[in-house]
Amino acid sequence: MFAAATKVVFLLGALSSCRGRRGDFIDEGVEVVAQQSSKFGSLWPLPQNVQISEVSFKLARDTFQIFDAKLSSAGPSCSLLQNAYRRYYDYIFGGLKKTWPSKHEWSDPAGLMGLQVLITDPEPGCEQYPSVTADESYQLFVDQPMAVLKAPKVWGALHGLETFSQLVYEDEFGAKNVNMTSISDFPRFAHRGVLLDSSRHFLPVKVILANLETMAMNKFNVFHWHIVDDPSFPYLSRTFPQLSQKGAYHPYTHVYTPADVKMIIEFARLRGIRVIPEFDTPGHTQSWGKGQSDLLTPCFAGPKPSGSFGPVNPILNTTYDFMSRLFQEISTVFPDAYVHLGGDEVDFTCWKSNPDVQRFMEQQGFGQDYGKLESFYIQRLLDIVASTKKGYMIWQEVFDNGVKLKADTLIHVWKGTQQQYQNEMAKVTSSGYQALLSTPWYLNRIAYGQDWQGHYKADPQDFQGTDEQKKLVIGGEACLWGEYVDATNLTPRLWPRASAVAERLWSAKTVTDINDAYSRLSSHRCRMVERGIPAEPLFSSYCPYEYKGI
Amino acid sequence: MFAAATKVVFLLGALSSCRGRRGDFIDEGVEVVAQQSSKFGSLWPLPQNVQISEVSFKLARDTFQIFDAKLSSAGPSCSLLQNAYRRYYDYIFGGLKKTWPSKHEWSDPAGLMGLQVLITDPEPGCEQYPSVTADESYQLFVDQPMAVLKAPKVWGALHGLETFSQLVYEDEFGAKNVNMTSISDFPRFAHRGVLLDSSRHFLPVKVILANLETMAMNKFNVFHWHIVDDPSFPYLSRTFPQLSQKGAYHPYTHVYTPADVKMIIEFARLRGIRVIPEFDTPGHTQSWGKGQSDLLTPCFAGPKPSGSFGPVNPILNTTYDFMSRLFQEISTVFPDAYVHLGGDEVDFTCWKSNPDVQRFMEQQGFGQDYGKLESFYIQRLLDIVASTKKGYMIWQEVFDNGVKLKADTLIHVWKGTQQQYQNEMAKVTSSGYQALLSTPWYLNRIAYGQDWQGHYKADPQDFQGTDEQKKLVIGGEACLWGEYVDATNLTPRLWPRASAVAERLWSAKTVTDINDAYSRLSSHRCRMVERGIPAEPLFSSYCPYEYKGI
Repeated sequence: MFAAATKVVFLLGALSSCRGRRGDFIDEGVEVVAQQSSKFGSLWPLPQNVQISEVSFKLARDTFQIFDAKLSSAGPSCSLLQNAYRRYYDYIFGGLKKTWPSKHEWSDPAGLMGLQVLITDPEPGCEQYPSVTADESYQLFVDQPMAVLKAPKVWGALHGLETFSQLVYEDEFGAKNVNMTSISDFPRFAHRGVLLDSSRHFLPVKVILANLETMAMNKFNVFHWHIVDDPSFPYLSRTFPQLSQKGAYHPYTHVYTPADVKMIIEFARLRGIRVIPEFDTPGHTQSWGKGQSDLLTPCFAGPKPSGSFGPVNPILNTTYDFMSRLFQEISTVFPDAYVHLGGDEVDFTCWKSNPDVQRFMEQQGFGQDYGKLESFYIQRLLDIVASTKKGYMIWQEVFDNGVKLKADTLIHVWKGTQQQYQNEMAKVTSSGYQALLSTPWYLNRIAYGQDWQGHYKADPQDFQGTDEQKKLVIGGEACLWGEYVDATNLTPRLWPRASAVAERLWSAKTVTDINDAYSRLSSHRCRMVERGIPAEPLFSSYCPYEYKGI
Repeated sequence: MFAAATKVVFLLGALSSCRGRRGDFIDEGVEVVAQQSSKFGSLWPLPQNVQISEVSFKLARDTFQIFDAKLSSAGPSCSLLQNAYRRYYDYIFGGLKKTWPSKHEWSDPAGLMGLQVLITDPEPGCEQYPSVTADESYQLFVDQPMAVLKAPKVWGALHGLETFSQLVYEDEFGAKNVNMTSISDFPRFAHRGVLLDSSRHFLPVKVILANLETMAMNKFNVFHWHIVDDPSFPYLSRTFPQLSQKGAYHPYTHVYTPADVKMIIEFARLRGIRVIPEFDTPGHTQSWGKGQSDLLTPCFAGPKPSGSFGPVNPILNTTYDFMSRLFQEISTVFPDAYVHLGGDEVDFTCWKSNPDVQRFMEQQGFGQDYGKLESFYIQRLLDIVASTKKGYMIWQEVFDNGVKLKADTLIHVWKGTQQQYQNEMAKVTSSGYQALLSTPWYLNRIAYGQDWQGHYKADPQDFQGTDEQKKLVIGGEACLWGEYVDATNLTPRLWPRASAVAERLWSAKTVTDINDAYSRLSSHRCRMVERGIPAEPLFSSYCPYEYKGI
């Protein structure tokens, strides 16, 4: 009989046991409590094609191996895979547990001897960075004597290793088992991201790494690093070190040095995760002004400067010189082909108050349309970034304002109600641009109850449009803005809520059974906990291995 | 000049930097961002009378002492105080930091040599348990050469030590300073509690201890331990070990042994915290039925038992025998004078379905009024508990149903809207009973934004009533029900949100300045973080010492 990799007891009485105490004055959310295990065990996100038989094999800790197949194009020199083998060996057998080999174990005729990994493409990608066009597919066959994981590239192999580790479960004696299984898998969307904000609160490197590790467990492949914003500028720029010297919360303890950034990018690469930095302008730049004089627009109170500053000053040549040098640096520090340029929420009040800006508006013939001034700035910025050979992502306002964009630009949709964001997705894709959805996945927005269900139900292709338009939907991102999160609470707030988004972006569109999802996700969250990640509970329940921190 | 004990930078630009990204589709909560430090530094909860001068003294790590005054009634044999001295010395100077004594430090003429602690009552209370009538007052005078903390009992001294530690701050060179200060302090309410629920999720002992420690930092004095409920029965009873053997999530890893319970009670006692266990009946008892047959009412589907069970069976003598023996044990295991008997949310459906219960109703002449049957049960239970010489707390339904109660019963108000709970407080107190408020402080109910402000504004004495009635308000409790919290997220969800309740229950009714509270609470939360507690942030900001976990 099939058993979940991580046991979770589902509570029959739970629906009746939880109604009142918390209720009585607020509407109740829908509470899903699965009555039984999923036939897919604890697989999360659910692979595209899965067949699991009832035949099971034991795995012997001391002899089980994960190794390169003879015909694999990736050999022992492929550190990326070797590191992954070690990581998943530890996850499967428990890094700290010591077992004593028993006679039974050594000679078990029903045992699985190992997992061989076969990379079929002549160029496996060991030294490369993942990209939006990377092949992430894999096939996994679990059968005696040896399981086989087959993938064109290392990226698919990484996902396949995670999937294999999710198939392994403990029987009642603590022995590791895996069922005969056949899986063929690939992601539904190419861009599956998590946005973290290190400006509103500084996030220690350790916290970022732990969340990259967890992203890999959920097959996310983009870390959208909203690295700077109004409150602080923690990015230590080699070209403009005064930006963090003056603009970070603290110039030494609350900055990301070049070494930190490099480590984060490499840690992500080893897990198949792209790092896309966001340097948001011309708004959201208060902290930039502290270390770079004349960058922000001086606001006026009547005829005199008020002493406060607005968005980036779009009328000075020095602004564009600065941006050229900064984005030149960014383009070398961050290897990904894309950079996120922000462009959201530009407040025109300050520009309107400034007489120099008014004069410039006249000269340019913009009239009173400050949207034109914004577009003027963005257009020049896009040209600068294009000259660094990078593609760009921008928040939807830039598209809404009619700025001329390169054909490969990604438009990031984040605003409005369900109806509004669906209309926006339709509009963006009918204009021929690629679209990325975040509106329904603002995970900083918390609510009482099982809000993961709402995140799970949202679908980025649910809008009125042609098949061609639907193909332009490149994926989505779960966003955790930083007003109310820092190292103390970020990880449990993100997981397993982001896991709901992960499945929506990876699995087939038809995977929508909320009860089955509840069962698998409960087990998946217990697995994250067992791996040391404080992922919060979905509902009354327990894990065999509870979190050990406080 | 006065400086906050823990530095927090308040963000001038924050109001403008946070509006849109999160907003646009949901109403914004009120965002308070203090523009400057409070004149009360980081004191939390605010003492009743405080005078802080601008004169400051340095504290030398290697020579500063906390010690018993010669005339104190508590000497070296008072372990409770000695332990507290050590604890607060560590908090003040940082347990792990090593400093090198400098000439300057040793000979600083402006230094404070130590803190002497004077217990004035002939019976200091070192070996006692705290109680609802305990004197928690203290006076604190900080001046050269020696600060003096004066309190009738050790309970006041514990609070005074916390207050003293909150007065100490680091100057820009890292030296410890304290300003000349005079404080006279006492709590507004005698019962200041936190409810934790160890049934819906098991809470490891370590997590409970960490939260008791944090309660002491906030001058809470009651741990309301909602130890068992429908989902699980983790209390290991010596008399009925099968209750946890069958009813816990796991009989070994998810139970509280007698040794665990004893340790928790002693840990709490050393911090002036009472432990009041709740054994909630007759509803909320599904897990009880697993280890005690015939305790719960068999539900019927038509003429036959359905296989499911309802509330405790009130018509059997064996039920009352069981309760007598269980509460006999509880009365010896838990030293506090009170036990919480629950009594909330009794669902009559199952009782109504059962023909034996129907027959009993007829015999007793209860007609169709199942409220009378509930009262019948509760009445007998109260008699049982009274015979163990314990007082009791009960949820408001028991009072609403007109059950006869002992004069010293505490009625715990938890239901309804603001208007409804205020009416209930009026009704309870006009009947001459003591009332305890929790309705506005259900901290499991999360919402986006600074919801601590709502918790802060609620006042348990805000209802229509006489002065006599107001005096019957004994305090309140912050409740964190366990559906959505376990070890992964409990601590940051509770703190600093519960701190808002702590100040409401300790400080004068007039302490309501939300900007001043924001400033002090931000610093207080950074202090909790520095002490190793993952208390979550109030808003965009940073702490000099960030949380080191993930």
